[in-house]
Amino acid sequence: MLYLSIAQEAEHWLAAFRSTLPELEINAWPAPVDPSRVRYIVTWNPPAGFFADFLNLEAVFAQGAGIDKLLARDDLAPDVHIVRLSNAGMAAQMVEYALFGVLRFQRDFDHYAEQQMDGAWRQHPPRLAEATRVSVLGLGAIGAAVASTLAGLGYRVSGWSRSPRELPGIRCVHGEAALGALLADTDILVGVLPSTPDTRGLLNRERLALLPAGAALINAGRGDLIDLAALVELLDNGRLRGAQLDVFPAEPLAADDALWRHPKLLITPHIAAATLIEPSAAQMADGIRRLQAGELPAGLVERQRAY
Amino acid sequence: MLYLSIAQEAEHWLAAFRSTLPELEINAWPAPVDPSRVRYIVTWNPPAGFFADFLNLEAVFAQGAGIDKLLARDDLAPDVHIVRLSNAGMAAQMVEYALFGVLRFQRDFDHYAEQQMDGAWRQHPPRLAEATRVSVLGLGAIGAAVASTLAGLGYRVSGWSRSPRELPGIRCVHGEAALGALLADTDILVGVLPSTPDTRGLLNRERLALLPAGAALINAGRGDLIDLAALVELLDNGRLRGAQLDVFPAEPLAADDALWRHPKLLITPHIAAATLIEPSAAQMADGIRRLQAGELPAGLVERQRAY
Repeated sequence: MLYLSIAQEAEHWLAAFRSTLPELEINAWPAPVDPSRVRYIVTWNPPAGFFADFLNLEAVFAQGAGIDKLLARDDLAPDVHIVRLSNAGMAAQMVEYALFGVLRFQRDFDHYAEQQMDGAWRQHPPRLAEATRVSVLGLGAIGAAVASTLAGLGYRVSGWSRSPRELPGIRCVHGEAALGALLADTDILVGVLPSTPDTRGLLNRERLALLPAGAALINAGRGDLIDLAALVELLDNGRLRGAQLDVFPAEPLAADDALWRHPKLLITPHIAAATLIEPSAAQMADGIRRLQAGELPAGLVERQRAY
Repeated sequence: MLYLSIAQEAEHWLAAFRSTLPELEINAWPAPVDPSRVRYIVTWNPPAGFFADFLNLEAVFAQGAGIDKLLARDDLAPDVHIVRLSNAGMAAQMVEYALFGVLRFQRDFDHYAEQQMDGAWRQHPPRLAEATRVSVLGLGAIGAAVASTLAGLGYRVSGWSRSPRELPGIRCVHGEAALGALLADTDILVGVLPSTPDTRGLLNRERLALLPAGAALINAGRGDLIDLAALVELLDNGRLRGAQLDVFPAEPLAADDALWRHPKLLITPHIAAATLIEPSAAQMADGIRRLQAGELPAGLVERQRAY
C-alpha cells in the first residue's frame, strides 16, 4: 500500500497517484490504514515518532529536494529508502529564481530602485553578461540547470560541487580546497546546495570575505549555508553589494526579524522552487515501479553522504 | 571622409573606427573638417541645421535603433541614407531587460517586495512559465530575440508586428486588426516598438483596457507608444497589476514627476539597451563598405515606413 501523509491538497495528490498507479492500493491521511500493510509513504515533515508503526515500510518519498530533516529523525530504520525529488519541475523554477537575481545585480535594477525613490535619472555604464562572472554552488540536477541556462545567456559561469562534475560551457571545480579561489573570482554567487554536514556553515565569515568588493549573493538552497551575521556585516560596511535570500536557518522568518528591513537584502519566503503535484507524483510513481522491479529509484538518498 | 559628431567617448569611437576602416580618412568633432569632403557621418541628435553644410553627404549612421528624431529634422536631404543600429549588442541587452520584467511579474517578486516591507512570510501559488502568456510587440532583430529567448525558457509567447513575420515557437500575428485579440490573451505585454506614425499612441486607453485583469506591461521601445495617463488610471483602479517602463514621452523624466513615486511602476532611465562602441562601429563600418561597393547597408531606414 502507498500511504500519503500530506497536509495540503491531499485530494489533488491522491488523484494524481491513482491515475498514475491504478494497480496499487493508495490511501491518504486521515483515512484509517493498517500500518503493517504500508510499503511506501509520501510525506514531508511528519510528527516525531510517526514512522515507528510502519514495520514493513520500504521507502519514504519526500515532497521536496531537501531531506535534511528526514535524515535527522530517529524513527526511520536505516534500511528504509529515502527518496528525494530530483527535478520534478523544480529545476525550471530554480533557474527562474536565480536568473532574476543575476539580472537584478548585473543590470543594476537594485541601484535603479534606489534612484527611483529619489527621482534620479542617472544611467550606469552597461555591464555585459560575458563580463559577469557567476558561480553556482551545487551542480546536481537543479544546479546544473541553473549553470547551463546562465551560460546559454552569455554569462561567464563557473560551478562548484563536492565531487567532480563536467558540464559543457561551465568551468567546473570541486572540493573545499578549490572554493576559496572560486569565490575570489566571482561577481554573483548562486547557492543551490542541500543542507549536509559538508555544507552547513560553508559560507562562513572567512569565505564570504574572499568575495571581491561589490560581489552579490543569491541563496535558494538551504539557509544554514551562510553565516548571516557575517553577511550582514559585509553588506553594512559596503564590502558586498547585496543578497537575495529565499531560505533561512529558521523558517518562517519572524515578522520582527531585522533581516526584512535591511536595504541590501531582497527576501522571499522559500518560494524559489515549489513542489508541483503532477510532476512530483509522476517521479515518485516511477520510483515505486523501480523498487517493485528490484531497481533503485532516481533521487535515492545516500545516507552516508546525507544527500 | 567619415566624420564623427559624437559628444561622449569620442576618442573611443575614433579608435574603434580607425582600426576597422584603416583605409578611410576619419575625423571627429571638434577637429576642423572641410564639410564638402564628408561622405558619412556618425551621430545621434546634433543641433538644428547641423547637416546643412554637408553637401556631399551620402549616409548618416545613427548611434541607436530609434531614428524618429533624425527623421523629424528638416536639414537632411531626402536622398541621404539614414542607417540605424539593428542589433550591435542591443538585442542581448534588451532580452535581459525584458526577461527581468517577465520574471518579476511571473514569479511575484513585485508582491514579495511589498510583503518584505511588512515582514510578511506568505507564499503565493506557483505560476509556471508554460502557463504565462507573454506578448511581444515588435518583431525586428530585437523583438525576435526577446520572443525567442522567452519561448526557449518555456513561456507561451506571441508576437505582433506591422507586417507578417514567422518565428519558430512563436505565435505571430500582424496588423492593427489583430492587436485587440492579442491583448485580450496576454498576461505580460512587452513593447519593443520604434516610434513611427503607426506606433505613436498605439496603446491608447481603449487598447490598454483590453488587457485581462491583473495583466502587466513592460515598455523598452519608445515612450510615445503608451497613453501614460490611461495606464496610471488602470493601475490605480486595480485593473492592471504593474508596469516596468524604460522610456518616456519626454526624457529625462523630471525629478518631481509623479510617475517615480507610483507604487506599481518600476522606472529605469532608458538603460534597456545601451549603444556598445565596438559592435556598433563594426556594424557601421560594414555599412560604409557596402555603400562603397554600391550595395545597401543593414539597418537602412525606409523613409516612407519611418523605420
